[in-house]
Amino acid sequence: MTHSDSGGTRLDPWLGSYASRAHNMRASEIRALFAVASRPEVVSLAGGMPYIGGLPLEEIGEMMRRLIVEHGETALQYGSGQGDENLREHITHVMALEGIRAHPDDVVVTTGSQQALDLVTTVFIDPGDVIVAEAPSYVGALGVFRAHEADVVHVPMDENGLIPVALASTLAGLKAEGRRVKFLYTVPNYHNPGGVTLSLERRPQILEICRRFGVLVLEDNPYGLLGFDREPLPAMRSMDAEGVIYLGSFSKTFAPGFRVGWAAAPHAVRDKLVLASESAILCPSNASQMAIASYLEHSDWQGQIKKFREQYRERRDAMIHALEEFIPEASWNVPDGGFYVWVKLPDGLDAKAMLPRAVTARVAYVPGTAFYFDGSGSNYMRLSYCYPTPERIREGVQRLAGVVEAEMETVRIFGPGAAGATKTVQFPSPDLA
Amino acid sequence: MTHSDSGGTRLDPWLGSYASRAHNMRASEIRALFAVASRPEVVSLAGGMPYIGGLPLEEIGEMMRRLIVEHGETALQYGSGQGDENLREHITHVMALEGIRAHPDDVVVTTGSQQALDLVTTVFIDPGDVIVAEAPSYVGALGVFRAHEADVVHVPMDENGLIPVALASTLAGLKAEGRRVKFLYTVPNYHNPGGVTLSLERRPQILEICRRFGVLVLEDNPYGLLGFDREPLPAMRSMDAEGVIYLGSFSKTFAPGFRVGWAAAPHAVRDKLVLASESAILCPSNASQMAIASYLEHSDWQGQIKKFREQYRERRDAMIHALEEFIPEASWNVPDGGFYVWVKLPDGLDAKAMLPRAVTARVAYVPGTAFYFDGSGSNYMRLSYCYPTPERIREGVQRLAGVVEAEMETVRIFGPGAAGATKTVQFPSPDLA
Repeated sequence: MTHSDSGGTRLDPWLGSYASRAHNMRASEIRALFAVASRPEVVSLAGGMPYIGGLPLEEIGEMMRRLIVEHGETALQYGSGQGDENLREHITHVMALEGIRAHPDDVVVTTGSQQALDLVTTVFIDPGDVIVAEAPSYVGALGVFRAHEADVVHVPMDENGLIPVALASTLAGLKAEGRRVKFLYTVPNYHNPGGVTLSLERRPQILEICRRFGVLVLEDNPYGLLGFDREPLPAMRSMDAEGVIYLGSFSKTFAPGFRVGWAAAPHAVRDKLVLASESAILCPSNASQMAIASYLEHSDWQGQIKKFREQYRERRDAMIHALEEFIPEASWNVPDGGFYVWVKLPDGLDAKAMLPRAVTARVAYVPGTAFYFDGSGSNYMRLSYCYPTPERIREGVQRLAGVVEAEMETVRIFGPGAAGATKTVQFPSPDLA
Repeated sequence: MTHSDSGGTRLDPWLGSYASRAHNMRASEIRALFAVASRPEVVSLAGGMPYIGGLPLEEIGEMMRRLIVEHGETALQYGSGQGDENLREHITHVMALEGIRAHPDDVVVTTGSQQALDLVTTVFIDPGDVIVAEAPSYVGALGVFRAHEADVVHVPMDENGLIPVALASTLAGLKAEGRRVKFLYTVPNYHNPGGVTLSLERRPQILEICRRFGVLVLEDNPYGLLGFDREPLPAMRSMDAEGVIYLGSFSKTFAPGFRVGWAAAPHAVRDKLVLASESAILCPSNASQMAIASYLEHSDWQGQIKKFREQYRERRDAMIHALEEFIPEASWNVPDGGFYVWVKLPDGLDAKAMLPRAVTARVAYVPGTAFYFDGSGSNYMRLSYCYPTPERIREGVQRLAGVVEAEMETVRIFGPGAAGATKTVQFPSPDLA
């Protein structure tokens, strides 16, 4: 039997049937990294998996038992497309920690904040529309934008986050070209992958610029409560409820395994997001949502976040000290929250080309190219300190130092083109090790 | 502050910013019905909520406790985009009950089979592409197709399901017009809303026709194991692994609250679905997936399905007897599985126009128009017997009979246009009662 009418080949009879957007779907670098990182002999400085070893599993297990026994007929049933009202109420209290005053009606619960990203993009982006985003930007967001055939224009950051004057001039330039900018995508706190935080002073400036150009702000904030040394800054949403869609998540402050995130959006946008979510999944999981609500009700969740912050600070310190000790020829920022250090390699080194050798040396990271829409950033890498222990972090950076040293030796002998010559190694590949 | 640059209005400053597809997102009739159905005084014959009162909650609660205590570090963490491998193995055994031989690699776990529908549509449909589907078709699928700007062409069914000769002539006509048909969407078993089952004899005929025209088959099968009087028929996927994407769900055979469904697809298509799912949600919930796997391992799930079938048969009988007793002037099919009776009202009656009066009389159903892409089917309604008790079903049909009688009286006195005059009542409206 053949499907020759569909223009297919033997390998994929449906090749001629895919939507045009399907051609933009590439294996994400994160995907291959999940496979690599799961091998115990590799120190993964790659993924954004939070440390959940500190969670009180006995307590959570007993909580789940009670939830099913006492409320099983609700927890196991379909729920509302917008999400469980009790959880949405709790979410308003979580957001209040960052100065946001919201009503439960403003909140849409999603299957992780990744789904919220996808819904916002679905509702706003036609092919060719422009999204403005920090340089670099979260790889998972770039993947969504690419899948929706958006064009992403990056705006530089410095140690205080997105640079207002650069944003204004980028938006002015795009306007002059007649390009349609739909929203600014920004991670203002403990940026992924940049590690920096948008200063308090700049927040109203960024909002004012976006208002002036009629550009919506998509504030993605998974790490806001994970600062090491200070209270959370006021969210951008707290300064402009009509101009900002705020995305939140329980993946980093509690646990990603339930896949519960949310969007808080202006009313009319919220209605669209609910409809898009009903189309995509009918409704989020009642069992997951009620588990989160129960955790917020019965556990000392703020105390747990405090413990997480202490853990992550210790790991950040381990990573910074190891970088200073083993790879002093590189440069990096020192994040004061979140999960990531953004490392600039010595000139001539290509983090993407180097990755297969790093994995062979049993250490993994994400190359900088993953965080740029146009694939630039080859001289950078993202190192995450969230998951491995301080000892493993030190071990991983030491292994990485060996790889960097060998690369530098190659560059010294053969010139800066030499390391790049290995670019023919395709990444991501599940069997790259 | 204004967002005048975005062409907005006071009510929705972002009105000018939405994607073109967002204009196709309308409040689904199912959405308003969730709100109506949740009011205890209304007998809902509307929703597709399964009866889960029979589940062993103590046992499931204890299972969840053990899952978190013993495997919490996996259950609460991110997982693979394709889904938990152990669960995918179990899913192949579930599909084997319908004659499918599949490998766990063929399976993509999704957030309910609704997400699988969305992913398949994302991967295959460009705006304007044609999807062929039964007349009528599942409202949730039509919503996804509409959100992706597909055009749906309906093909008639009879008591043996989709009519092969009608399918062939529809595909030939579309081909002659130069229209691009991407797939056939079909619910072969205990159709939603039609209640009929595609006969064994017709299955290879439908597959052969689709092969001839290079059209993929999307076999949506949530109810296949819920037949009242016979063993499951072989799935279409069991007859053509390369030409069929099969969608399954645990929502009707176990519980919808975990939101776990799946797609089994040809290899190259499977890869695209995984990428689309990673973009949409990163990964499905480990906690939910492991809960399902644990249930399949430790509970008598096939025994539980047998109990569900007996419950649903009893409710089907209650509904059919009540229809015979109270609304003999209507006509309907007698389903031998699944959740739904498809009712044709007496001539001149409009189920959509009648709905507000039915809800006032404390009974709800879904008007036939929800199940046609072009909004036809006004003379039909879907009644579901899955959720209310037999006594409540009888009460609901009796209430409905009063509404139908009053409508017929209006038609007798004022003519068939009269009932239609109330069409100005907008549906769906959350406050329609």
